Amino acid sequence: MTKPMLKGNAVVGQAGGPTAVINQSLVGVIQEVQKYDHITHLLGARHGIKGILQNEYIDLKRQPTEMLELVACTPASALGSTRYKPKDDDFERIVDSFRRNDVRYFFYIGGNDSAEAAQIINKMAQDRRYDLRVIHIPKTIDNDLLVTDHCPGYGSAAKFVASAFIGDNLDNRALPGVKINILMGREAGFITAASILARQREDDGPHLIYVPERPFTVEKFIRDVHEVLDRFGRCLVAVSEGIRDEKGVLWTQKIVEEMGKRGGSNHIVEKDSFGHVQLSGTGVLADYLAGVAKIELSQVRREARVRADTYGYLQRSFPAWSEVDAWEARLVGQMAVSYSLDTDQDGSVALVRLPGTSYACGTHLVPLEAVAPATEPKTKKLPDEYIAPEGNYINDQFLVYVGPLVGNLPKAGWFEQVTPGRPYGARR
Amino acid sequence: MTKPMLKGNAVVGQAGGPTAVINQSLVGVIQEVQKYDHITHLLGARHGIKGILQNEYIDLKRQPTEMLELVACTPASALGSTRYKPKDDDFERIVDSFRRNDVRYFFYIGGNDSAEAAQIINKMAQDRRYDLRVIHIPKTIDNDLLVTDHCPGYGSAAKFVASAFIGDNLDNRALPGVKINILMGREAGFITAASILARQREDDGPHLIYVPERPFTVEKFIRDVHEVLDRFGRCLVAVSEGIRDEKGVLWTQKIVEEMGKRGGSNHIVEKDSFGHVQLSGTGVLADYLAGVAKIELSQVRREARVRADTYGYLQRSFPAWSEVDAWEARLVGQMAVSYSLDTDQDGSVALVRLPGTSYACGTHLVPLEAVAPATEPKTKKLPDEYIAPEGNYINDQFLVYVGPLVGNLPKAGWFEQVTPGRPYGARR
Repeated sequence: MTKPMLKGNAVVGQAGGPTAVINQSLVGVIQEVQKYDHITHLLGARHGIKGILQNEYIDLKRQPTEMLELVACTPASALGSTRYKPKDDDFERIVDSFRRNDVRYFFYIGGNDSAEAAQIINKMAQDRRYDLRVIHIPKTIDNDLLVTDHCPGYGSAAKFVASAFIGDNLDNRALPGVKINILMGREAGFITAASILARQREDDGPHLIYVPERPFTVEKFIRDVHEVLDRFGRCLVAVSEGIRDEKGVLWTQKIVEEMGKRGGSNHIVEKDSFGHVQLSGTGVLADYLAGVAKIELSQVRREARVRADTYGYLQRSFPAWSEVDAWEARLVGQMAVSYSLDTDQDGSVALVRLPGTSYACGTHLVPLEAVAPATEPKTKKLPDEYIAPEGNYINDQFLVYVGPLVGNLPKAGWFEQVTPGRPYGARR
Repeated sequence: MTKPMLKGNAVVGQAGGPTAVINQSLVGVIQEVQKYDHITHLLGARHGIKGILQNEYIDLKRQPTEMLELVACTPASALGSTRYKPKDDDFERIVDSFRRNDVRYFFYIGGNDSAEAAQIINKMAQDRRYDLRVIHIPKTIDNDLLVTDHCPGYGSAAKFVASAFIGDNLDNRALPGVKINILMGREAGFITAASILARQREDDGPHLIYVPERPFTVEKFIRDVHEVLDRFGRCLVAVSEGIRDEKGVLWTQKIVEEMGKRGGSNHIVEKDSFGHVQLSGTGVLADYLAGVAKIELSQVRREARVRADTYGYLQRSFPAWSEVDAWEARLVGQMAVSYSLDTDQDGSVALVRLPGTSYACGTHLVPLEAVAPATEPKTKKLPDEYIAPEGNYINDQFLVYVGPLVGNLPKAGWFEQVTPGRPYGARR
């Protein structure tokens, strides 16, 4: 260590959309801080930046272990979260508040918006020569943060989606038809791609997977569905909420605008405080695709049973998780504290996959600018090599990436015996 | 026994919407039949009545135990299901087919439509003096079958909903606002009512619960939401897909008709083959209620974050279950075979809750007419005593009914410490 260890208080906060394991990271921070004396108070900011601005904290350093372990296994941000985007003078107030409260460590659990906020706070403290260690702790179900191999929170969302598709595939096998599921992922297809983990038999769904990284056209979609129906007599489809047309316009936006023009409801989609179109929680894309598929398919086929669901917030809030994800979320919290003591570098904790045949991950500290850069791209997309050339499916090599993050999945049983003349569990 | 034991083959089939534990009942039938010699072949009809009509069967009697146990723990009908409603001449063909295949036992796992089909087949066999034992085995996630204390399948759906609300309540606590979830239950509020199991703290959601048994008006809904927001600063709402207005018209139908009039999409809702309006899988009710709430609330409040989800098919297909439900589903399958041997009565297996302080259930055989009567009511509603007088909540005594059917639920942890002046976990 080149500098003496900073003495004072620490603040920890949670921001953005919660995940199933975000409290693991919080508890990782708390338990690591509990080991050291030079941090006097660990202040848990209520609702992230908002709590810092309003001086609302919970003292976390002396919380009992039993309760901490229960909190760690509780989904959604135990401190409360926020979507508030701080303004310039907010940042000044934050640094002033830190100085007033003798805060020398700031741990911020969040996505790239939070990394950017951490970076601004860090820079402002430096400019004012206020000695402050700022460590960003990654979380997002979207898995779209730069640098890190994957984001804590993603594995659990992927596991929920894969589990849900296992059940939905069995349901679709029992009552054959077309089933469309809309999945989260505004810009990146990672969550949607995880549906491929549901495949246990050759003819299992999802049979078609559409991600935001490839343009989506209704004509191609209908052709794809016809092909799958011809082959398997049923069709299970995974569609990202963020699919766009060939001009890059969000399909949800197109549909809502069309409904608005025709005098239909125009208050379904709104913009959030970051200026993104708010997709989650609206069923229009599911209903539209199901409606279109029904009309198009019924012109050719006698039976066209089409259903659609939007998985919605369950993807981040359902109280179940991947064990690996929970473990890694704890790890990045612990390591954030560890890095803050060992170096005078600020930064973001990144997971790095260790080379070798079986799965193992370590961490390293990367500059905040690497996770929240000033220029595009600011987030990660699903890499090209994972997307099938036709743009309607995911390559098997994605399983190597995502499999270990999700862990064990429910295994389906079935009767192998086949009635002559009618394939049951036909080979693809 | 007054008659000698019937020798011949048996047919088992699964019908209607699958559940998470419907294969437990199937495996219960198979394992019980495996004990006896007088049933030569146990024929599993592929897709229920359809398989019987098309002579498509899987021979189930000699399936290995290990595989059966895996199938038992697999959601959705392993034999395939059907929504096909048999016509008069179909029934004649079924009885002819049974005679041709020397089928003397028919076990049909399904809801009240299946009980009705079983009853018609039974009567027709009697009229033709063909000796046939017909036993209906109950399943439905809606829990709306007459006579039985509850339906196998319901406990697992209730557990999914309760678990989902536990997560969603935590999410709503982390990012406060109004969250509306639309739940299955076309006629009966049992599934929606199960959301109340999510309450662990006094201020936990769901804060409002609307079931089809009470008329729903937007005015009352908005008043209710305002009240909850005033009290808790957030509001989690459970709404049944089957809510109706004061004239008894389905809200989903009203909304779609209104959209149609205004030139919007009119292909979202369709009728299924039983003539019911098909609600599941359409997001219009969620989007409409969220849209209306946003507009109404924003006229009074500065912030009005409103989100809505439709849980959809996950309620019946998610690969997780209540242990009690799985056990009872196995039991009713086993008992169906047992009743078919011990008596010459045909009927439906009903669960009966045994009196006493702790939970235990037995079975008895009830006449098919009792489960599928010729006159209304043909299904069960959520009893009045479970619904709060205001029609917007569920009484605690429902917990006594539903609790044992669901079993253990994830437990949430939280920090008890309160920042002065700001209640965290305020008492209701």
